Amino acid sequence: AQQYRITLLPGDGIGPEIMTVAVEVLKVVGKKFDLQFEFQEALIGGAAIDEAGEPLPSTTLDMCRNSDAVLLAAIGGYKWDSLPSNLRPEAGLLGLRAGLELFANLRPAKILPELIDSSTLKREIVEGVDIMVVRELTGGIYFGKPKGIFSSETNEKRGINTMVYAESEIERIGKVAFEAARKRQSRLCSVDKANVLEVSQVWRNRITDLANDYPDVELSHMYVDNAAMQLVRAPKQFDTIVTGNLFGDILSDAAAMLTGSIGMLPSASLGASGPGVFEPVHGSAPDIAGQDKANPLAQVLSAAMMLRYGLNQPQAADAVENTVSSILQQDMRTGDIMSPGMKLLGCSAMGEVLIET
Amino acid sequence: AQQYRITLLPGDGIGPEIMTVAVEVLKVVGKKFDLQFEFQEALIGGAAIDEAGEPLPSTTLDMCRNSDAVLLAAIGGYKWDSLPSNLRPEAGLLGLRAGLELFANLRPAKILPELIDSSTLKREIVEGVDIMVVRELTGGIYFGKPKGIFSSETNEKRGINTMVYAESEIERIGKVAFEAARKRQSRLCSVDKANVLEVSQVWRNRITDLANDYPDVELSHMYVDNAAMQLVRAPKQFDTIVTGNLFGDILSDAAAMLTGSIGMLPSASLGASGPGVFEPVHGSAPDIAGQDKANPLAQVLSAAMMLRYGLNQPQAADAVENTVSSILQQDMRTGDIMSPGMKLLGCSAMGEVLIET
Ligand SMILES: CC(C)[C@H](C(=O)O)[C@@H](O)C(=O)O
Ligand SMILES: CC(C)[C@H](C(=O)O)[C@@H](O)C(=O)O
Repeated sequence: AQQYRITLLPGDGIGPEIMTVAVEVLKVVGKKFDLQFEFQEALIGGAAIDEAGEPLPSTTLDMCRNSDAVLLAAIGGYKWDSLPSNLRPEAGLLGLRAGLELFANLRPAKILPELIDSSTLKREIVEGVDIMVVRELTGGIYFGKPKGIFSSETNEKRGINTMVYAESEIERIGKVAFEAARKRQSRLCSVDKANVLEVSQVWRNRITDLANDYPDVELSHMYVDNAAMQLVRAPKQFDTIVTGNLFGDILSDAAAMLTGSIGMLPSASLGASGPGVFEPVHGSAPDIAGQDKANPLAQVLSAAMMLRYGLNQPQAADAVENTVSSILQQDMRTGDIMSPGMKLLGCSAMGEVLIET
Repeated sequence: AQQYRITLLPGDGIGPEIMTVAVEVLKVVGKKFDLQFEFQEALIGGAAIDEAGEPLPSTTLDMCRNSDAVLLAAIGGYKWDSLPSNLRPEAGLLGLRAGLELFANLRPAKILPELIDSSTLKREIVEGVDIMVVRELTGGIYFGKPKGIFSSETNEKRGINTMVYAESEIERIGKVAFEAARKRQSRLCSVDKANVLEVSQVWRNRITDLANDYPDVELSHMYVDNAAMQLVRAPKQFDTIVTGNLFGDILSDAAAMLTGSIGMLPSASLGASGPGVFEPVHGSAPDIAGQDKANPLAQVLSAAMMLRYGLNQPQAADAVENTVSSILQQDMRTGDIMSPGMKLLGCSAMGEVLIET
């Protein structure tokens, strides 16, 4: 049997509950496809702050580095919101991205036929929406320097962050995006703010140059404000989107919400070498944590993305995704995607159904 | 009669057509309310580039400074898209904002009952949406330094822009926002990315402190990615939003698109002293320029905002807004907001109807 070492990062809030379900599913699929998983669990986020005094203990990063893939659930919560920024749960996530050099974040926003009515948009607008947002994840304003809070001579505070992209950074995310577009409908829309920002002009030029290597992919450019608008107006116009860290943060969440079921959406963060991190798009939902109400399906679909992009086991990935589809077709729903006439399941009950299917 | 000097900046694309309509409406309303307008026209954007070689000639800025209010239509077009950024139409707009110190941009996104079906969102989600986005307009990453394109030792280009806010800048936009919220439903949501950006932490702290002076206004905070999501998920939760320049650019466009009728939305840009600039949210629509197809109503409603916020003539503003409502109630529509059974009007025909009503 093929052996894989998987680091599990359950994190905060509903994280541990949904992780438990995903691990059970992986065990079943492992048996079926002769894959042997060795799971090792590590601390991140608020849980790490509480137990180890920091959001990303070095042991966690080491364990991640020594594994074939990392499955992350969710981090953060009100409890840690007043800590200084370098000690907050989010710093753990950013540290993980930087530490593993996860420069490419893939965020699919695909509307599932069974859940089309959960969307706040009209059926004819969202039916068939299938967008892949490729977000740069280790550069831009998230990591640019100088950054910090500085006091002027008059003792006035100024907050500073720097949005910076070098051509090489743009090139490597661009390549991932063109390749991704190729496996889809071969249409790539690069989003920037080149009418105002110099950093976006470098972005746009480098992406435009790269297009020469991908003559089969149709490249377009869009300003970020217009992209936010077009996602609401006519989301079906998009196939693959590539953009920087901050714009990707905003647009991938907007795109996700179009589907009406953010509890269903997985994501993958990949580096040049080393393990990728696979996690749901949704957050840690501290308000429903521990109540067996969470929707574990995004976590399960993140495990499927791990099988596909992290471990190169597309058949096992297909099997997991098909199981999720068939459960939806059998009208089983968690609270967040519940609608009249459907069967309401809690997190663990959903887990049991997944394993049996 | 009260006298006002108004600088008109028709700009590019459909700008001149819709400006003509707004001026006619102002003349009629002026007669009715005993207001005397002295109109002076100046160049901006692509039109200024073509005639004067720069997007904001100093004569234009001087004329604006020497007037009681500025009515702007729209700037930009494909024609000027390949110019270097300091010579593009957008640079004219940014120069105008900086030159007149227009730090407060008010962008209402209100759904009109007559146009509710133009929204891509379901009726029950958008019915009653009435959001005011207060966007900081002369700071943040639009103007922060250092900025530019730099070459490294290895000749690699790096684009750099700086997002910076000083407490005093946050305070003055915050005050405008709290005051605006007070005149509305007294709920203010401040949008930032304080879980990642130091500049947002300064923003959040200063806004939080300011709230002490406005105990009657309910303040909340939201991360920008979540705000983009919540605008799609449940836009009615918002009353007044305050945010920085870049986030305001993105979110106000998303909010505008929720209404489904961006051709209807005006905006106001105000400074500490001196004239404000009033302009539609939509762009210059070069694809339909000169075809008498444009919707002039956002421009007309911008003139109403000018009467209200720029000239302190609320009754005249009411009259203009009521005229627009009554025209919609009479089922008259331009192409962008057309639906079956309505009467289709061109830009100039819409102007005639406005004047007669
Ligand atoms: C939690 C936060 C730091 C993070 C981000 O901004 O990248 C999150 O919003 C995301 O999109 O993964
Ligand atoms: C044209 C552009 C410079 C401008 C901006 O980004 O502010 C526009 O998008 C707007 O929102 O007024």
